[in-house]
Amino acid sequence: MDSMTMIAMVSIITAGLTIAIGVLGPSLGEGKAVATALTSLAQQPDASATITRTLFVGLAMIESTAIYCFVVSMILLFANPFWNHVIAQTAGQ
Amino acid sequence: MDSMTMIAMVSIITAGLTIAIGVLGPSLGEGKAVATALTSLAQQPDASATITRTLFVGLAMIESTAIYCFVVSMILLFANPFWNHVIAQTAGQ
Amino acid sequence: MDSMTMIAMVSIITAGLTIAIGVLGPSLGEGKAVATALTSLAQQPDASATITRTLFVGLAMIESTAIYCFVVSMILLFANPFWNHVIAQTAGQ
Amino acid sequence: MDSMTMIAMVSIITAGLTIAIGVLGPSLGEGKAVATALTSLAQQPDASATITRTLFVGLAMIESTAIYCFVVSMILLFANPFWNHVIAQTAGQ
Amino acid sequence: MDSMTMIAMVSIITAGLTIAIGVLGPSLGEGKAVATALTSLAQQPDASATITRTLFVGLAMIESTAIYCFVVSMILLFANPFWNHVIAQTAGQ
Amino acid sequence: MDSMTMIAMVSIITAGLTIAIGVLGPSLGEGKAVATALTSLAQQPDASATITRTLFVGLAMIESTAIYCFVVSMILLFANPFWNHVIAQTAGQ
Amino acid sequence: MDSMTMIAMVSIITAGLTIAIGVLGPSLGEGKAVATALTSLAQQPDASATITRTLFVGLAMIESTAIYCFVVSMILLFANPFWNHVIAQTAGQ
Amino acid sequence: MDSMTMIAMVSIITAGLTIAIGVLGPSLGEGKAVATALTSLAQQPDASATITRTLFVGLAMIESTAIYCFVVSMILLFANPFWNHVIAQTAGQ
Amino acid sequence: MDSMTMIAMVSIITAGLTIAIGVLGPSLGEGKAVATALTSLAQQPDASATITRTLFVGLAMIESTAIYCFVVSMILLFANPFWNHVIAQTAGQ
Amino acid sequence: MDSMTMIAMVSIITAGLTIAIGVLGPSLGEGKAVATALTSLAQQPDASATITRTLFVGLAMIESTAIYCFVVSMILLFANPFWNHVIAQTAGQ
Amino acid sequence: MDSMTMIAMVSIITAGLTIAIGVLGPSLGEGKAVATALTSLAQQPDASATITRTLFVGLAMIESTAIYCFVVSMILLFANPFWNHVIAQTAGQ
Amino acid sequence: MDSMTMIAMVSIITAGLTIAIGVLGPSLGEGKAVATALTSLAQQPDASATITRTLFVGLAMIESTAIYCFVVSMILLFANPFWNHVIAQTAGQ
Amino acid sequence: MDSMTMIAMVSIITAGLTIAIGVLGPSLGEGKAVATALTSLAQQPDASATITRTLFVGLAMIESTAIYCFVVSMILLFANPFWNHVIAQTAGQ
Amino acid sequence: MDSMTMIAMVSIITAGLTIAIGVLGPSLGEGKAVATALTSLAQQPDASATITRTLFVGLAMIESTAIYCFVVSMILLFANPFWNHVIAQTAGQ
Repeated sequence: MDSMTMIAMVSIITAGLTIAIGVLGPSLGEGKAVATALTSLAQQPDASATITRTLFVGLAMIESTAIYCFVVSMILLFANPFWNHVIAQTAGQ
Repeated sequence: MDSMTMIAMVSIITAGLTIAIGVLGPSLGEGKAVATALTSLAQQPDASATITRTLFVGLAMIESTAIYCFVVSMILLFANPFWNHVIAQTAGQ
Repeated sequence: MDSMTMIAMVSIITAGLTIAIGVLGPSLGEGKAVATALTSLAQQPDASATITRTLFVGLAMIESTAIYCFVVSMILLFANPFWNHVIAQTAGQ
Repeated sequence: MDSMTMIAMVSIITAGLTIAIGVLGPSLGEGKAVATALTSLAQQPDASATITRTLFVGLAMIESTAIYCFVVSMILLFANPFWNHVIAQTAGQ
Repeated sequence: MDSMTMIAMVSIITAGLTIAIGVLGPSLGEGKAVATALTSLAQQPDASATITRTLFVGLAMIESTAIYCFVVSMILLFANPFWNHVIAQTAGQ
Repeated sequence: MDSMTMIAMVSIITAGLTIAIGVLGPSLGEGKAVATALTSLAQQPDASATITRTLFVGLAMIESTAIYCFVVSMILLFANPFWNHVIAQTAGQ
Repeated sequence: MDSMTMIAMVSIITAGLTIAIGVLGPSLGEGKAVATALTSLAQQPDASATITRTLFVGLAMIESTAIYCFVVSMILLFANPFWNHVIAQTAGQ
Repeated sequence: MDSMTMIAMVSIITAGLTIAIGVLGPSLGEGKAVATALTSLAQQPDASATITRTLFVGLAMIESTAIYCFVVSMILLFANPFWNHVIAQTAGQ
Repeated sequence: MDSMTMIAMVSIITAGLTIAIGVLGPSLGEGKAVATALTSLAQQPDASATITRTLFVGLAMIESTAIYCFVVSMILLFANPFWNHVIAQTAGQ
Repeated sequence: MDSMTMIAMVSIITAGLTIAIGVLGPSLGEGKAVATALTSLAQQPDASATITRTLFVGLAMIESTAIYCFVVSMILLFANPFWNHVIAQTAGQ
Repeated sequence: MDSMTMIAMVSIITAGLTIAIGVLGPSLGEGKAVATALTSLAQQPDASATITRTLFVGLAMIESTAIYCFVVSMILLFANPFWNHVIAQTAGQ
Repeated sequence: MDSMTMIAMVSIITAGLTIAIGVLGPSLGEGKAVATALTSLAQQPDASATITRTLFVGLAMIESTAIYCFVVSMILLFANPFWNHVIAQTAGQ
Repeated sequence: MDSMTMIAMVSIITAGLTIAIGVLGPSLGEGKAVATALTSLAQQPDASATITRTLFVGLAMIESTAIYCFVVSMILLFANPFWNHVIAQTAGQ
Repeated sequence: MDSMTMIAMVSIITAGLTIAIGVLGPSLGEGKAVATALTSLAQQPDASATITRTLFVGLAMIESTAIYCFVVSMILLFANPFWNHVIAQTAGQ
């Protein structure tokens, strides 16, 4: 097995696992946040403006950690510096 | 085993595991969100408009993390850059 | 072991594990949602229309994540692009 | 070990594990749903029609995810496309 | 080790593990359902007809998932299509 | 190692693990059911007939899943179809 | 390593693990049942006859699952059909 | 490595693990039972005779599962039928 | 590696793991029992004689399971029948 | 496989796993913090200024731990000192 | 690798793991016991003598299980019978 | 594979895993601390000065454990004494 | 790899893992004890002397289990009897 | 691979894992302690002096276990006795 194949293989596996494992925490965290928002809205409908605004800021913070994983996954698939190096090396060989 | 087979194999395995592991968090998170929405509706039926709207925004946020996994899984199956490279290389050989 | 056998093997394993692991989250999430719906119905029978409608929308969202896994599993069994490539390659050999 | 044996082996293992792991979630989810239904019936016997109807719809949704696993398991045992291909190939050899 | 032995071995292992892992969920789910039924009966003895009927329907649904596993386990032991194929092949050799 | 030894070994291991893992769920489920029955009896002694009857039906359902495992374990030890085939084959050799 | 040694080894390991893993569930289930019985006795001393009788029936049911494991473990140590076969075969050789 | 050494090794390992894993459940179950007994005694000192009697019967039942493991462990160390067979065989050689 | 070394090695490993894993359950169970005793004493100081006596009997029962592990561990280190056999065999060689 | 390929491979795997595992804790922690913030807002709307400010400081602290992981992941992909050394060494060879 | 090195290696590993795993249970159990003692003292300061005495007896019992592990760990490091045997054997060689 | 490559590889893997695993505890602990701070602020707004100060001291203590991991991770990447030794050795060779 | 290197390696690994795993229990147990002490102080400030004294005795007991691990870890690093033996042996060779 | 490289490798891995695993317990324990301190402050602001003092003593005790791990990690990186021995040995060679 040559270097190019090895790097392609680990890039595929890592790209998939990164996003698969990485969304576990954010999705559970967002589920918890949304759930509490709904309880709070039912309990204090008058504060819905403050609650909704705080919820969206919080969701954005949590979603950002999922975005980190998605970005790394995409980099590995489409802008992989190691893959590019090997391709360049092979082409220039 | 040649490079093409290896890449095909890890793509199949990763595509499956990515979506299988990746829906675990979102489905549990959505279940929690929906469950709390129903409790809140039963407790405060008058706020059903606000609750339903917030629920749908939250579900969309959570579902988005499942979509990330589905997108990566589909890319690995049907638009795999490493597979395309190997196919092109083999064809041009 | 030739390439065709290897790809067939990993396709079988991945197809099974994808749907087996993938239904874990959705089924637990739906169980939680249905359970809360029943509690809410017993607590506030007058809001049964709103509760049932919200429950069905929520179940559809959660079921969608199980569908993703089923789709990937079926693709791996009956429309596997890598398998098709290898079959075509073998036939054209 | 020839290809046919390998494919037969992984089909057997995967068929068993798919249904074994796959019923874990649905059975726990249904247990939770049934349990809450009984609590709700004891608390609000007058709403038994609505509760029973919602319970059956919910159980059907959850059972559907177990059916997915059973279908994949049966396909692997009795309508395995990869096995059929290998049998055809061996027969036509 | 010949093909026949290998298939016999994986069939034995899978048959045992399928039923062993597969009864974990149903037995816990049924335990929960029965436990809640008893609580409900103690709380609302007048609704015992409705509660008992709903419990039996629920237990049947949950038991069905254990039956799936038992069926697959029995198929692997006594009606294994792959084993039959190999036996036929050996006999016709 | 000949085929007979291999099949004997996996039969022994599987027979033991099947019953060992398989009683985990039923025993916990029965413990929960019995525990709730005792709580209910203490809370509503007048309904002891209904509670006891429902408990025994429930215990029978849960015990049935343990019986499945015991049956498979006994089949593997004393009526193993694969072992019988190999013995017959060896005797007729 | 000859067949006899291999079968002896797996019999020893399986006999030990079967009873070790197999008592986990029953002992926890019995602990829960006994604990609830004591709570119920403290809460409703007048119903001690019914509670004690139900507890003993329940303990017997749970203990039966531990007995299954002990029986399989003893069979493997002292009445192992595979070991007997090998001994007979060696003696008759 | 000869047969005798192998059997001695697995006997040692299994004897240790059997009792180590096997006391996990009983000790936790007994801890729970004793704890509840103390709570019940504090709540209803008048029923101390009934509570203590029931506790001791329950502890005996739970301890019995630990005894099973200890018996198997001792059998493996001091009355191991497989070891005896090998010793006899070696001596008679 | 000769037989004596192998048996010495597995004896060391098993002796350590047996006591390490084996004290997990008893120490947690005793912690729970002691904790409840303290709660009960604070709640019902008048019953301190009965509570303390029951606690000590319970602790003795739980500690006994830890003693089983310690005994097996010591047997493996200082009265190991297999080691003695090998030593005797080596000496008499 | 040469050194360059090995380093590229472990850099890819580690970069992915670092961010994937690393966001698990922060996202759950932030979800908990946001959820409590919403409950507190519903309970005490007058203190919304203090609550929101404290929430943002807390989120920043928690997010910082996710940033640590993202930084290490980026360093491994784009500023890897070991990779640079190997590249320099290869170029200067 | 000679026998002496192997025995030294497993002694080191086992000594460390025995104490590391072995303090897990006792420290958690003692934490629980101390925590409840503090709650009880705050609730019933008048019974502080009885509570403190019972706590110390309980802590001694729990600590004893940690001592078992420490003793085995020390024996393995400084009074290892197998190591002594090998050293004696090597010296007398 | 030469020494330099091996050390580079384990440094990369360890640097990533150290920070990834190491932030798990601190982020969850900080999330818990911030969450309780918000609850306390909503419950007792008058004590906001004391609560905020105590929160910041606590967060600093918890963050310090994450800093330990980050420091070790950075040392491994940029000030690795073993890597420096090998580089020096190679240069001076 | 010679004996000295092997013993050095396992000493390093064991020293690290012993203290890393060994502080898990004590730190959680102390956290629980401190947390309850604070709750008790807030609930009964008059008993602060008794609570503080009992807390310190308890912390000392729990810390002692962490000290055991630290002592073993230090012994392995700086007073390792096996390492000393090997060094002496090598020097005297 | 020579001895020096092996020792360097295991030192790097162990140093990282020791601090990574070792901060898990302390950070969770401190989070719990800080969280309860905040609840207690909100409930009894008058006892803030006693609570804060007890909190700091407790945090110091818990942090000490994290320090143990950091010390071992630093020793392994910068004052590793085994590494020093090997370096000295190599230099004096």
